[in-house]
Amino acid sequence: MTTSRQIHLIRRPNGMPVPDDFAVREVATPDASDGQVQVQAVLMSVDPYMRPRLTADQPLDAPMLGGGIGRIVQSRNPKFKEGDLVRHGAGMQERFVSDGRGLQIVDRDPALPLSVYMHALGGTGITAYGGLLEVGALKDGEQVFVSTAGGAVGSVVAQIAKIKGCWVAGSTGADDKAAWLKDEAGLDAVINYKARPLRESLREAMPKGIDVYFENVGGSHLDAVLPRMNVRGRIPVCGMISTYNGGGDPVKNLSVMIYSRVRMEGFVASDFPHLQAQFVSDMTGWLKDGRIKYQETILDGFERAPEGLIGLFEGRNSGKMLIRVAD
Amino acid sequence: MTTSRQIHLIRRPNGMPVPDDFAVREVATPDASDGQVQVQAVLMSVDPYMRPRLTADQPLDAPMLGGGIGRIVQSRNPKFKEGDLVRHGAGMQERFVSDGRGLQIVDRDPALPLSVYMHALGGTGITAYGGLLEVGALKDGEQVFVSTAGGAVGSVVAQIAKIKGCWVAGSTGADDKAAWLKDEAGLDAVINYKARPLRESLREAMPKGIDVYFENVGGSHLDAVLPRMNVRGRIPVCGMISTYNGGGDPVKNLSVMIYSRVRMEGFVASDFPHLQAQFVSDMTGWLKDGRIKYQETILDGFERAPEGLIGLFEGRNSGKMLIRVAD
Repeated sequence: MTTSRQIHLIRRPNGMPVPDDFAVREVATPDASDGQVQVQAVLMSVDPYMRPRLTADQPLDAPMLGGGIGRIVQSRNPKFKEGDLVRHGAGMQERFVSDGRGLQIVDRDPALPLSVYMHALGGTGITAYGGLLEVGALKDGEQVFVSTAGGAVGSVVAQIAKIKGCWVAGSTGADDKAAWLKDEAGLDAVINYKARPLRESLREAMPKGIDVYFENVGGSHLDAVLPRMNVRGRIPVCGMISTYNGGGDPVKNLSVMIYSRVRMEGFVASDFPHLQAQFVSDMTGWLKDGRIKYQETILDGFERAPEGLIGLFEGRNSGKMLIRVAD
Repeated sequence: MTTSRQIHLIRRPNGMPVPDDFAVREVATPDASDGQVQVQAVLMSVDPYMRPRLTADQPLDAPMLGGGIGRIVQSRNPKFKEGDLVRHGAGMQERFVSDGRGLQIVDRDPALPLSVYMHALGGTGITAYGGLLEVGALKDGEQVFVSTAGGAVGSVVAQIAKIKGCWVAGSTGADDKAAWLKDEAGLDAVINYKARPLRESLREAMPKGIDVYFENVGGSHLDAVLPRMNVRGRIPVCGMISTYNGGGDPVKNLSVMIYSRVRMEGFVASDFPHLQAQFVSDMTGWLKDGRIKYQETILDGFERAPEGLIGLFEGRNSGKMLIRVAD
């Protein structure tokens, strides 16, 4: 028996979440009994998909749903040994006991830091890979526009498109992210959508129109993109972060989809189990070759998870936002 | 040499088109010379797709673009003989001379009236057939909702879905159309969207959700439908008539596409040449068996084309709106 902490949602946010919507609760964590393991959190993820959950299926006064990587600290289950690193979906708990279901041992390449298994080689990576290549049906050399290109998903999307020989432009709301995308990630054009109307910037940045728009934003972003879509263009819809906090501009230009035969399609990270092996092989190689670069924003301290989540919605992260609980 | 009339757009509409945006012009029509035919208009089509053209690619002071069926009245082209009925895209002209390109002889089944070749067996029919079966990827027995189900496309979509064993609901803004859809076309549920909020009506009419939404309206119609879409639902986008005259409510609920993995895709009638033979075979059979019923609104008189077009946007048609120029 030990004590550990959990992050609880204690009331539903009214618009943008605030720190007082969350609380840190101390609970008793039992030792592992037969068939069980005890897991200690190492890294925890905060992700855009969590926002709609806060107003819907996230229970109040219970651990925040979410994923992370933990370390097996007690094992009475023959599938796991102490010291194993496991990916889990047990949410925001410092320690927890599990019968092993839902835990996957991280097959870590020693040349790569553990944190990449939480983004480029984790959920955001497969989201980028499957969303762009399968839902977006990307063809080599196409014209690609990525929104929130400075984010964990967008930055990987943009770089995969570059690897595939595409012309790639990305949007971001911050000058430092814009500089990273241009100088480090090698995008052909970077748009700061706060500096000028996106529609004007797109005309210059995408002179041949857009074959694939990787959608993370929705609202006025989508409205600016739609008239520039090429015939048979695709819009994989990964997120619409502008609309999650009850805001965001509504969309008026959908009718251009008709003559341009645009296809828009929603998807989530778990849609691509059939691509997983190829994804791990491709992405491990790209990371080791330096063809996929990344940024991370890591907050140290379990109790900072709400701060990380709110920061994510305010765009205060560069690349993947993570909470480090232990080394 | 003879004289004939043309319908011209003489100024771009400001919102809903009005009669003074159009004019009837008399022009000289030469006789057919070698290799040519002269065609006399018999039936002319007015269609929703014409609306965006009025503000864009429809030239001013030139014949309105559009399709129809005409009769060969002079032939100096061996492919056509006098009396042949031909489908054409020569626009709103009482008579015109052609070298034969773009003219297709109507292979008329004597058991069917000529007018059906302008709707159920014409452009609106293949639009319904290809849009529902190919873009919508309809599976037998699914849950189907059709907007403007009383229109030329929608009424065929709804009846094909019934033939395929689906649960079918349709929306219309008029009680007489609602009665026809229920009593004649055999829909499972008919919604008058003007009588109650569509969202409430849909909850009752589509208790198992919506697998395929055949989109003709856009705006608030789409917004009411989106939250009721089933996982992996499809929205073939045929039209967004509510937005064509500069009005229509913007769309706020697109983010539900993500978790529901909804696919929305635009298309036009000409996308389905590979389905044409199967379409003609299926549709001829369905019409002769009475499994596809139809309504027509036929205005007599060439000069009434603008009235027909405006009436279409005001919903004054029951089924396909046609202009009869000659018997």
